[in-house]
Amino acid sequence: MSLVRQLFAHPGMSRADLAAAAGLTKSTVSTIVRELIEEGWMCEREVVATGDLGRRPTPMFIDQERLLLIGAEVDIESARVVATSLTGDVLASATANFGAGKSAKACVGALANAMLTVRAQLNSNKQRVVGIGVGLPGGVDEDTGFLHFAPNLGWRDVPVGSMLREKLAGTALAGVPMFLQNEADVAALGEVEFNPSIASDPLLYLSMNQGVGAGVIFSDRLLTGRRGFAGEVGHMVLHINGPMCSCGRRGCAEALIGPRAILGTEEEHPHPLREIRRLMQERHPETLRAIKKAGGYLGVLLQNLASAYDPGSIVIGGQMAELGDVFLQPALRTLTAYAAAANLPPPNVRSSRFGRDAVAVGAAALVRYRLTRPLMATLDGEASVEMAA
Amino acid sequence: MSLVRQLFAHPGMSRADLAAAAGLTKSTVSTIVRELIEEGWMCEREVVATGDLGRRPTPMFIDQERLLLIGAEVDIESARVVATSLTGDVLASATANFGAGKSAKACVGALANAMLTVRAQLNSNKQRVVGIGVGLPGGVDEDTGFLHFAPNLGWRDVPVGSMLREKLAGTALAGVPMFLQNEADVAALGEVEFNPSIASDPLLYLSMNQGVGAGVIFSDRLLTGRRGFAGEVGHMVLHINGPMCSCGRRGCAEALIGPRAILGTEEEHPHPLREIRRLMQERHPETLRAIKKAGGYLGVLLQNLASAYDPGSIVIGGQMAELGDVFLQPALRTLTAYAAAANLPPPNVRSSRFGRDAVAVGAAALVRYRLTRPLMATLDGEASVEMAA
Repeated sequence: MSLVRQLFAHPGMSRADLAAAAGLTKSTVSTIVRELIEEGWMCEREVVATGDLGRRPTPMFIDQERLLLIGAEVDIESARVVATSLTGDVLASATANFGAGKSAKACVGALANAMLTVRAQLNSNKQRVVGIGVGLPGGVDEDTGFLHFAPNLGWRDVPVGSMLREKLAGTALAGVPMFLQNEADVAALGEVEFNPSIASDPLLYLSMNQGVGAGVIFSDRLLTGRRGFAGEVGHMVLHINGPMCSCGRRGCAEALIGPRAILGTEEEHPHPLREIRRLMQERHPETLRAIKKAGGYLGVLLQNLASAYDPGSIVIGGQMAELGDVFLQPALRTLTAYAAAANLPPPNVRSSRFGRDAVAVGAAALVRYRLTRPLMATLDGEASVEMAA
Repeated sequence: MSLVRQLFAHPGMSRADLAAAAGLTKSTVSTIVRELIEEGWMCEREVVATGDLGRRPTPMFIDQERLLLIGAEVDIESARVVATSLTGDVLASATANFGAGKSAKACVGALANAMLTVRAQLNSNKQRVVGIGVGLPGGVDEDTGFLHFAPNLGWRDVPVGSMLREKLAGTALAGVPMFLQNEADVAALGEVEFNPSIASDPLLYLSMNQGVGAGVIFSDRLLTGRRGFAGEVGHMVLHINGPMCSCGRRGCAEALIGPRAILGTEEEHPHPLREIRRLMQERHPETLRAIKKAGGYLGVLLQNLASAYDPGSIVIGGQMAELGDVFLQPALRTLTAYAAAANLPPPNVRSSRFGRDAVAVGAAALVRYRLTRPLMATLDGEASVEMAA
């Protein structure tokens, strides 16, 4: 798959270019390329005649029509499913609204139906789904497909992977390889896979919904940590002995920035984000002040992320990001002030190019990431895997 | 070099084992192994006769005698130089005391002399130095050998690499490849290179001297960040609007944990760590209280590091770590309390197995790391580099 990765980064390379880049002979590359064209990964495009003498080498491109990726975001009340090309263009989509507080079984059933709705929009003669990715709002064990803990869904140790596989058995999506990961992690992968730039490395995707978490990609690798909990930056302490957090600790970023911090803790709202949007529309003064204050704390969190990872880019996403300037401007002001105090340029902060589909498209990117990478480097090195295709 | 890396991880592999692991033919491996033996990287050892029938494959080992690494730590008042085997055993060492406040030129001169003192202790007929590594207390651009900023040395944009190369010109160490990096980064590499364990991944080395910083290794890669500032965890904010930090910001970890925090800011001490040790020996009550308080804040920082990276191991080093239990126990208590509040196991925290030589040995590890790894993965893939040797 290293030839496929070459073309992701440099569309239009010829077979000779690919051979040179991979250190393989031209005849080996020709054989592999023939297979990859047959399988639907690559295609040739005609050389435009320019009047120059001699035959031009044929440029190769990633095939954007035959192989597709399915990506899904599971949120608290709904699931969003997209089908994308290998290069991340959304070709079909569906949303399942299951409402809050439903059982994991009911949610996974609705998710499977949305996937099949998307599948039905595709041309089953010409298009093949090579994998399904799912982004979940909690800690995920990618090897087993278990969602360990999703506080805002109220799920603990749910075998989402096998439940979904069971729901899809006997359907058009039966047996398709499946990959599950945390929602911020997949959104970060979406940015790197479908919009690669060396200047963005390391890339952080900060996801702010009811919970606050980050996905971190560094040197083309997803940082998952020892137990899959890396990037749990919502539980970094920003203020010792600060307000109580949902995790049981005090002064966590989430307790200062999250929707509960904005609404105050006296009353539990079943839909805190919806409530904040309502109060914002009413221009409720206390809420606007609380959003600004939370935005300032977001700036402190961004400062801590800059210190920890020295990111090339921080991408901000999630429903909290949709609160807009009233929330984000105080954050950027705080971040800029911290940077100026230390005489450093502030890190590059931007929103996702995939907007509300950042997690679903990111889940599709997880499929591409896993299918086109060798196994992660281990103590045993990676030479043997890397040499294939 | 992937065969050498195989042997680092699995001493005693035969040529056939190496061929299988690398996906190369036995004859290719035999040729490469012959070269690596000639160059001094590997050696054979006799098979112990066991009375079994048939010829046993010859086990291969990393040669611990012929090729050596030189590693150096540049600290505020002194430099420490070690020579190690390829497997990290210290074979010779020297210390240069240049005193505080000397010019960069004087310090680099003393460093070069200490390196030559170490070189003179080696057997120049049989032993060859394959590389020199240097750990520096600041942000380093490894490509150019520039030390960007070392606040506690008072150095800014110093071309340490070229200065050292100039001092070594015409000596026994002329022309030896040289590698420079931040001191916490190299100490982290020392732990991973010379004491590998999958259970330690990601590994964090928290270096606490006058400054506080961390080196992070994840999936066999050093996290340097966009500009070489990753792991500047001393400047994570732990307490919004907290005490003023040397960096110009407020509430940074360093301002709560570092030696200046313990001594108080009313008076500037030229040797704050020495002063703290003196007051500790006198059992000065206010100092002991301040150390305990700083230790508690260290626990908050450790909690934030656990949230950010989900490390397999956090290794604590530097002169602050030598304050011992009075400082470290409150840290571990705080960390354990945070973990318990969230119903999670606390991360594994330990001291360096190389003690006070952690940075110097780590600098030797930097040499091994750079010489035996392919270029870092880039958007262009890594196949071609990985296939060599």
